[in-house]
Amino acid sequence: MAATTADDTVDVLIIGAGPAGLMLACWLSRFNLKTRIVDKRDTKIFTGQADGLQCRSLEILDSFDIGHRVWRESNHMIEICLWNPDGTGRIRRSDRIPDTIVGISRFTQVVLHQGRIERFFLDTIKEGKSSLKVERGVLPTKFDYDESKAGNFNDHPITVTLRTLTEEEATPQQSGAIAAANGTKSGTKVQDGLFRSNLAPDDTDELIKATELNDRAGKTEVIKARFMVGCDGARSWVRQQLGFSLTGDSTDYIWGVLDIIPVTDFPDIRMRCAIHSENQGSVMIIPRENKLVRLYIQLKEVAVGEGGRADRTKITPDVILKSAQNIMAPYKLAYSYCDWWTAYQIGQRVGDKFSLDERVFLAGDAVHTHSPKAGQGMNVSMQDTYNLGWKIALVASGVCDSAILKTYELERKKVAQDLIDFDHRFSRLFSGRPAKDVMDEEGISMEEFKDAFVKGNMFASAIAVDYQDSLIVTRKTSSASQLITKEETGRTIKVGMRMPSFRVLNQSDARPWQLQERLPSDGRWRILLFAGNLTDPLTLSRYNTLGEKLAAPQSFLRRFTPASAKIDSTIEILTIHSAPRREIELSSLPEIFHPYCEENGWDYWKVFADDESYHEGHGRCYENLGLDSGVGAAVIIRPDQYVSWVGEVEDYGGMERFFGGFMVARE
Amino acid sequence: MAATTADDTVDVLIIGAGPAGLMLACWLSRFNLKTRIVDKRDTKIFTGQADGLQCRSLEILDSFDIGHRVWRESNHMIEICLWNPDGTGRIRRSDRIPDTIVGISRFTQVVLHQGRIERFFLDTIKEGKSSLKVERGVLPTKFDYDESKAGNFNDHPITVTLRTLTEEEATPQQSGAIAAANGTKSGTKVQDGLFRSNLAPDDTDELIKATELNDRAGKTEVIKARFMVGCDGARSWVRQQLGFSLTGDSTDYIWGVLDIIPVTDFPDIRMRCAIHSENQGSVMIIPRENKLVRLYIQLKEVAVGEGGRADRTKITPDVILKSAQNIMAPYKLAYSYCDWWTAYQIGQRVGDKFSLDERVFLAGDAVHTHSPKAGQGMNVSMQDTYNLGWKIALVASGVCDSAILKTYELERKKVAQDLIDFDHRFSRLFSGRPAKDVMDEEGISMEEFKDAFVKGNMFASAIAVDYQDSLIVTRKTSSASQLITKEETGRTIKVGMRMPSFRVLNQSDARPWQLQERLPSDGRWRILLFAGNLTDPLTLSRYNTLGEKLAAPQSFLRRFTPASAKIDSTIEILTIHSAPRREIELSSLPEIFHPYCEENGWDYWKVFADDESYHEGHGRCYENLGLDSGVGAAVIIRPDQYVSWVGEVEDYGGMERFFGGFMVARE
Repeated sequence: MAATTADDTVDVLIIGAGPAGLMLACWLSRFNLKTRIVDKRDTKIFTGQADGLQCRSLEILDSFDIGHRVWRESNHMIEICLWNPDGTGRIRRSDRIPDTIVGISRFTQVVLHQGRIERFFLDTIKEGKSSLKVERGVLPTKFDYDESKAGNFNDHPITVTLRTLTEEEATPQQSGAIAAANGTKSGTKVQDGLFRSNLAPDDTDELIKATELNDRAGKTEVIKARFMVGCDGARSWVRQQLGFSLTGDSTDYIWGVLDIIPVTDFPDIRMRCAIHSENQGSVMIIPRENKLVRLYIQLKEVAVGEGGRADRTKITPDVILKSAQNIMAPYKLAYSYCDWWTAYQIGQRVGDKFSLDERVFLAGDAVHTHSPKAGQGMNVSMQDTYNLGWKIALVASGVCDSAILKTYELERKKVAQDLIDFDHRFSRLFSGRPAKDVMDEEGISMEEFKDAFVKGNMFASAIAVDYQDSLIVTRKTSSASQLITKEETGRTIKVGMRMPSFRVLNQSDARPWQLQERLPSDGRWRILLFAGNLTDPLTLSRYNTLGEKLAAPQSFLRRFTPASAKIDSTIEILTIHSAPRREIELSSLPEIFHPYCEENGWDYWKVFADDESYHEGHGRCYENLGLDSGVGAAVIIRPDQYVSWVGEVEDYGGMERFFGGFMVARE
Repeated sequence: MAATTADDTVDVLIIGAGPAGLMLACWLSRFNLKTRIVDKRDTKIFTGQADGLQCRSLEILDSFDIGHRVWRESNHMIEICLWNPDGTGRIRRSDRIPDTIVGISRFTQVVLHQGRIERFFLDTIKEGKSSLKVERGVLPTKFDYDESKAGNFNDHPITVTLRTLTEEEATPQQSGAIAAANGTKSGTKVQDGLFRSNLAPDDTDELIKATELNDRAGKTEVIKARFMVGCDGARSWVRQQLGFSLTGDSTDYIWGVLDIIPVTDFPDIRMRCAIHSENQGSVMIIPRENKLVRLYIQLKEVAVGEGGRADRTKITPDVILKSAQNIMAPYKLAYSYCDWWTAYQIGQRVGDKFSLDERVFLAGDAVHTHSPKAGQGMNVSMQDTYNLGWKIALVASGVCDSAILKTYELERKKVAQDLIDFDHRFSRLFSGRPAKDVMDEEGISMEEFKDAFVKGNMFASAIAVDYQDSLIVTRKTSSASQLITKEETGRTIKVGMRMPSFRVLNQSDARPWQLQERLPSDGRWRILLFAGNLTDPLTLSRYNTLGEKLAAPQSFLRRFTPASAKIDSTIEILTIHSAPRREIELSSLPEIFHPYCEENGWDYWKVFADDESYHEGHGRCYENLGLDSGVGAAVIIRPDQYVSWVGEVEDYGGMERFFGGFMVARE
């Protein structure tokens, strides 16, 4: 590689400021690192696009202190209604099922448009430690990679040229004024979503050319980076530079999307519905915020032409609405306000590689594309970078060994493949014609569809995600399996899965908290000490012994924490005991579990009781998690709330071995 | 009165932008009225001042969509610990009691400093219908009142001259740098709260004089107003203009206040505590947000001098801290950060009149002053204008007759008197020395103190507020008492009290809501139809009959709603039925209960079911309210959530008579 003088040097360069890019920026904003994030578009999303948020996504957003904003503004989807043709061919409600499986999370699935989620990310990024700001209308045009620097994670092997676009270049063309389909309000301005659909041609090359031709395009900058992450969508420029590919297929199924305030006599318009008509195709109803309803509508009339791509000029809101009217007849459907519309062709593709030497990564649509109907797009994309962000940050900050970066592809590629498989099956069942009877082999069994829906809900929630064994996920502790006796996905402690949440009381002030609220995404590892009933002398003595070892000058806790930093800054220890709260005095517990500092005195926010609250009942944390009050358990939690290790409270050696595998000793 | 040319004409002029003034502005921002609000200070509060928020205040703030912001940022106080001298004179924890009575509200008492509450008000006022903005550094200097216009509520009997102060005049003097009391950080800038304490001299006259002398003071404006409200504190300028007085007494008890991050081994420092020492005085501990703790500390060493006022120059943070150390010994108390401090002399006074002709009103500290320890100041002040705001707005907008304005003094004067009585008793018990034994007649019985605390909690919550009979509160319905069988304060429907809240499910989408969340403060009256089990034909037919009457062209609902407005704009009807949700179809219910409009189709947010939810249990609304599913009840709720009238579901005549008493027929 030729020597280049850099205009700027960064720790992390993020290409793309959609949900995946913003989630990553959100993580990095929590650290003292230099990060830049660029996006070729000059504005953020205001309407339409992805909107479904699964309960794991809400837990994650809540860990960044923005979950409550989503929860308040969003529409909560509680029940799914299935509509199928009856014996006469008329559609009837055949089933009702809960939208989110009961008990797996403290949140349920909600719907809020992507633009609001992006707003919340931008707000919280602004409040972070770094001076991170999204740079819009900025396009990467050239990529160089110096392999010789790949092994040194303090070095900057990545060189990227960024060009700032003119406003005109950065603003996508839209179709402009569209008459409302039922004619009550003509000429309403409607956002045409086709320009971002996979039916639209990719304009990246065009944009690059334009900036080269046009001197007014503004400055060009050469950036050197330690890490780069491509969050730049299905046509990822970063992926192209790496020469990685997506493999998979597209189908002949074309679907349209309308975001409208419906005027309809269909009874379940505020429920999530899956409607299979006898032979007009299918509709999915997603009720949204602000009286809006999103309809996903199968477009049987739109044919896929040569080259396997549909003719997008044939697709208008009128065409989409008429399809919906046919499917939903005899119910009437009209609207006087349309907020957004688009169309897409179903396909499923997944990336072969997720990273180059753990220095350049791909995330989100850049490594997996699929149909939007399972409400997975924004979720899996955000969860990719939620997985990646803290790993890059802790390596870049010198807290963890670079070896942990390999777990990104290990963990997320399997999730992507599962998603593609799920979507493949689900799309086929949704786009197929209902079987007339058991002999109708070409038709889709409505029983099979319902079954797929119910099972799909567990997958879709992302609560079932179960990461493989690695340096940072280890099932190989002798005692783990004996400690946890209960097996119920989402409600019990399972190595590789996210820590479930139950209500516990702060020992110091009796306030009830969801345990998860005490696990914010701030980059810290955590040891949860389910210390058991501390009024029992044996149980207390085990806890005290651990406290002594942790407090010792040579303990791993001190070794992995910089001498100048607070003792809880790298690994935070939280105690959840099962003694009656009133029978325990915080001051009688080892100081390491409620550490003292000169400035603030003792820490009153680290010890909790599994006990009855005055106003919010009893969380029954031990009972729900299958924990024995006489034995308890120690649980190590990653910065992303996934369980790394489970052992006995007194197993200091096991904890030391676990952290010793990847933590860097500090001074 | 001499004829004056007005520079501006307004519907309502608010003097004072503390909690009472801002609550009023918040109400008025919801209406198409012209309101101005001025405050002589040039900045809002940033630290210290009132901080306790009782559960009724949280319900009210939530009805303006800002309760969640308080709930998230505040410290939640759950338990009260009482500390008394034992036989040896050493202080010991003698009792623990819940801070908020269990079951009376969906909120508990919290603490957050006044500046944040004011911020939330300002944010929501900005989003309102009117272009309302707080004008700071503006002082009223002259008041004229034209009695001849008092009877015509469309006329403007009030003339006020406003002067804009210079920055210097409007900024209060503070004591500046204060060394931290334990010496670990010297010279820390600390807000001195004495300048607003009742120990400080009133500077209003000085300010007026200054503006007259100084030409740079900026403009003078003459305002004509229909209504004026004095929310201008204990030394109310408005009250002086009216010639009204406060009656009551001050005591010799002097208390200091410290907002600090404590460094202490006192075990209950994060609990609300009442500590009576043997003979050093008393301390109240109020744990706050951001690791802060507020201490109210009795200053036994500070004497009240001639004129009944203490010498404020003798009071410093050091003096206050030393008193606390003496009271809390043998526990140690120090701090390295002090956020704010002040001191005050306990007294209780209440206004004789709350209004002049229902055109000029007084609210908050302008009509009642008392000690801050019961956490009542901000609460009762806000609740005064919460009571008044909608009444002024509905009269000024021509929706209700001016006769309803008389209920302000009727309802709030009794609350103020009760507050003064409560505070008198409570302060005496708190400031007194604990009795050594039953023979010690000068001492305070700790049993009596505990009893006062427990009883005081019900009063302090403001849930027990019970408004008298009037045009808008009527207990004279024949059937009311038979409908509601249960009597439990805060949990049952009682005419004159606020409507309790339980979880119900939206019929259209199965989403659980707290009933109270569907009663936002938007100026609308509401009829809650507890329609009973609508699968029962008789029950359904009663409901249908009422629907027919309400939908009729001559119904009171149409008569009191402008023809051009939506049918739910003056009186909103909400149905809460007790049939299983899945057995009811919204479309089969009378349209008036889910009204249709061309733009948005049917209304999906007005019919609710008292049924089991998937994720949040069963609200058991009927059971909790003591309602019979076979009979149900109709409940008329004022715009401030207080119950006006209870009758039978089919009692259309009763409803018509009630509304006919004060609503204005529209065109």
